[in-house]
Amino acid sequence: MALMVLERVGIVGCGLIGGSLALALRRAGLARHIVGYSPSQASREQAVALGAIDEAVTTAQAAAEGCDLVVLAVPVAATAATMQTVAPSLTAQAMVMDVGSTKGDVVAAARATLGKHLTRFVPAHPIAGKAETGVAHAQATLFRGARVILTPVAETQPEVVARASMLWTAVGARVATLSAATHDEIFAAVSHAPHLFAFAYMQAMLADPAASKAMAWAGPGFRDFTRIAGGDATLWRDVLLANAEQVLQQSKQFRAALTAMEALMENRDSPALHAALLSASQGRAAWAQATANDGASYAATAAPAASDNAH
Amino acid sequence: MALMVLERVGIVGCGLIGGSLALALRRAGLARHIVGYSPSQASREQAVALGAIDEAVTTAQAAAEGCDLVVLAVPVAATAATMQTVAPSLTAQAMVMDVGSTKGDVVAAARATLGKHLTRFVPAHPIAGKAETGVAHAQATLFRGARVILTPVAETQPEVVARASMLWTAVGARVATLSAATHDEIFAAVSHAPHLFAFAYMQAMLADPAASKAMAWAGPGFRDFTRIAGGDATLWRDVLLANAEQVLQQSKQFRAALTAMEALMENRDSPALHAALLSASQGRAAWAQATANDGASYAATAAPAASDNAH
Repeated sequence: MALMVLERVGIVGCGLIGGSLALALRRAGLARHIVGYSPSQASREQAVALGAIDEAVTTAQAAAEGCDLVVLAVPVAATAATMQTVAPSLTAQAMVMDVGSTKGDVVAAARATLGKHLTRFVPAHPIAGKAETGVAHAQATLFRGARVILTPVAETQPEVVARASMLWTAVGARVATLSAATHDEIFAAVSHAPHLFAFAYMQAMLADPAASKAMAWAGPGFRDFTRIAGGDATLWRDVLLANAEQVLQQSKQFRAALTAMEALMENRDSPALHAALLSASQGRAAWAQATANDGASYAATAAPAASDNAH
Repeated sequence: MALMVLERVGIVGCGLIGGSLALALRRAGLARHIVGYSPSQASREQAVALGAIDEAVTTAQAAAEGCDLVVLAVPVAATAATMQTVAPSLTAQAMVMDVGSTKGDVVAAARATLGKHLTRFVPAHPIAGKAETGVAHAQATLFRGARVILTPVAETQPEVVARASMLWTAVGARVATLSAATHDEIFAAVSHAPHLFAFAYMQAMLADPAASKAMAWAGPGFRDFTRIAGGDATLWRDVLLANAEQVLQQSKQFRAALTAMEALMENRDSPALHAALLSASQGRAAWAQATANDGASYAATAAPAASDNAH
C-alpha cells in the first residue's frame, strides 16, 4: 500500500506533541494543508508562526472538518470530551488518532463517542517528549528513533492501522502494535509506577525539614532518580488516574519488595541483602545491555560516566 | 598554613578511589613516594603500571609504615579490621583518612582501634565515582569539582583537619565539614534511601514475569530512575547496613508518602493528587535550579533533553 499524501490534517491540541507531529508530517511531505486548534490563542498563533500549521481555527470542530487525518493531541483527561466535540465534524474517510500515554481509557472514550468512526480510529502512544512542553518546543525530529505503540480496537480496519503505521514510520518512529490492556499493563510497570515513586519520594523529602535541607548535598544519583518527578503535574495526574488500577498493583508489589529489603536490613541479614542487591544490579545491567543491542540507545547514552557509583 | 609535600603516602586499597587519589596527589606534586597495598596482586601490579603508586607492598601494615598520610580506601565493611591492622604501624605524625560513604560506623571503628592516633584521624567522604570500579579506571581528575565531606571527631586536631582540607582542595575538590551523625542523616535521605528504592523496584520487576517482560518497552524515564540500581552489590550492602537506622527511617517516611498518594488515586481525588504532584514537581525544579546556581552542574548537565516527559 502506497503512502498517500494527506490533503488536510487537523491537529486538535497544538502542544509539543501535536506541533511536532505537524512539523514532521510537513517535512516528510505527507500533508498538504494543516489546520490547528488550541484553546489558547497564544499557542494557535505560535503554531502558525512556527510553520507547524497553515491555519489556526478557534474550535476543535473546525479543526476536524473535512480532514483525512484528525490528531487528538490533548491532555489524557480531555480526550473523551474532545472526541465528543469533533465526532459530528468527521468525514467518512477521516482517520482519527490520539497520542495519549494511556490507552484503555482512550479506547473506552472512543467507544462511547466515535460511533461509526471507530473503524478508522487508531489509538497511538508516541514515546517521545522533552522537558519543555508547548508548541514553542515542537520539533520535526521529535519522533526520530522513538517508539510509537498503536493499540487498534477490534473495529479498527486493518488498512487504517497499516496507514497509521506508515505515517509514523515516515516521520522516523519505530512502530509496534499491542492491545490497549497490554499497553497499559506494560507502561504501569515501566513508566507510570516509577513516576509515582519518584513523585512520592520528592513529597517525602519536602515534608521532612531535615531531608529538605539535605537536598543541598544531593548528587548525580539523586538527580537521575528524581528526574521524572519533575514531570508535568496535570499530565501525570491524568495518567495516574487513567491507569490507576494497574499502577496501584505495581505500587503494591514494589512496597512488598521494599519492606522485604527493609527486613533484611533490620535483621542484619548480610548474605540475603547482598543476594537481593546483586540480582537487582544484574537485572539492571542485563536491561541496559539488551536496550543497547536493541538500538534504542537509551542505556548506551545513559548517564554521565563519572557518577554511577558516587554516593 | 602552607601545604607541605608529603614525603611518603600509604594507600591501603588500590581501587578506583584510592588509585585516583594517588594519581591526583602525584599530579598536584603533593606526594614524593606513594606505597600501595591491595589484597589482589593484579590490582597492586596494575596500580604500579598505571603510575598510581611507586611501590606495591603485600600487607596493609607495610603500606602504613613511616607514612605522613595513610589513606584507607577499603570497602566500608572492612574499615574496622583494616584500622586495627595498620594502627601499630602508624608513626606519631601520620594523618589517617578514610574515604567511605558512611561515617558513623567509621568513627566508631576509629575510636575502637586507633587509640592516640585518633587526634590525626580525618574521616572523609569524597562524593565521586564512576560506573566502573577498580584501579584500571582510576583518574587524577576524579575529584575535580566533586564535593568532599570531612567529619572530624572531637579529638581530631584542628590543624590536621585544615591540612586534609587543603589536600582535597589541591586535587580540585570542594570541601565541607559536617558531624558524622549529620553526614549519615543527610546521605541516608539523598543517596542511600533512593538506592534502596531503586534496588527494590528492580527486585519487584524481576519477581513479576509480566513486569520483567515489560522492561523491553522501558524508555529514558526507567533508565534514569533505575540507574543507581546498577550499583555494586557489595558496596551497597555495606552502606545500607552501616547506615541502616537512618535509611530505614527514610524508607518509612517514603512509604507513608507513597501510600498517601495511592489513597488519593484510589479515591480518585483529582485535586489533591494534582496538588501533591505539583509540589513534588516544583520541589524538584527548585532543586535543579539551586544546584545549577551552586555550580555543581548536576542538574544543568542532567539528562538528554529529548526525554523528560516521554512516558
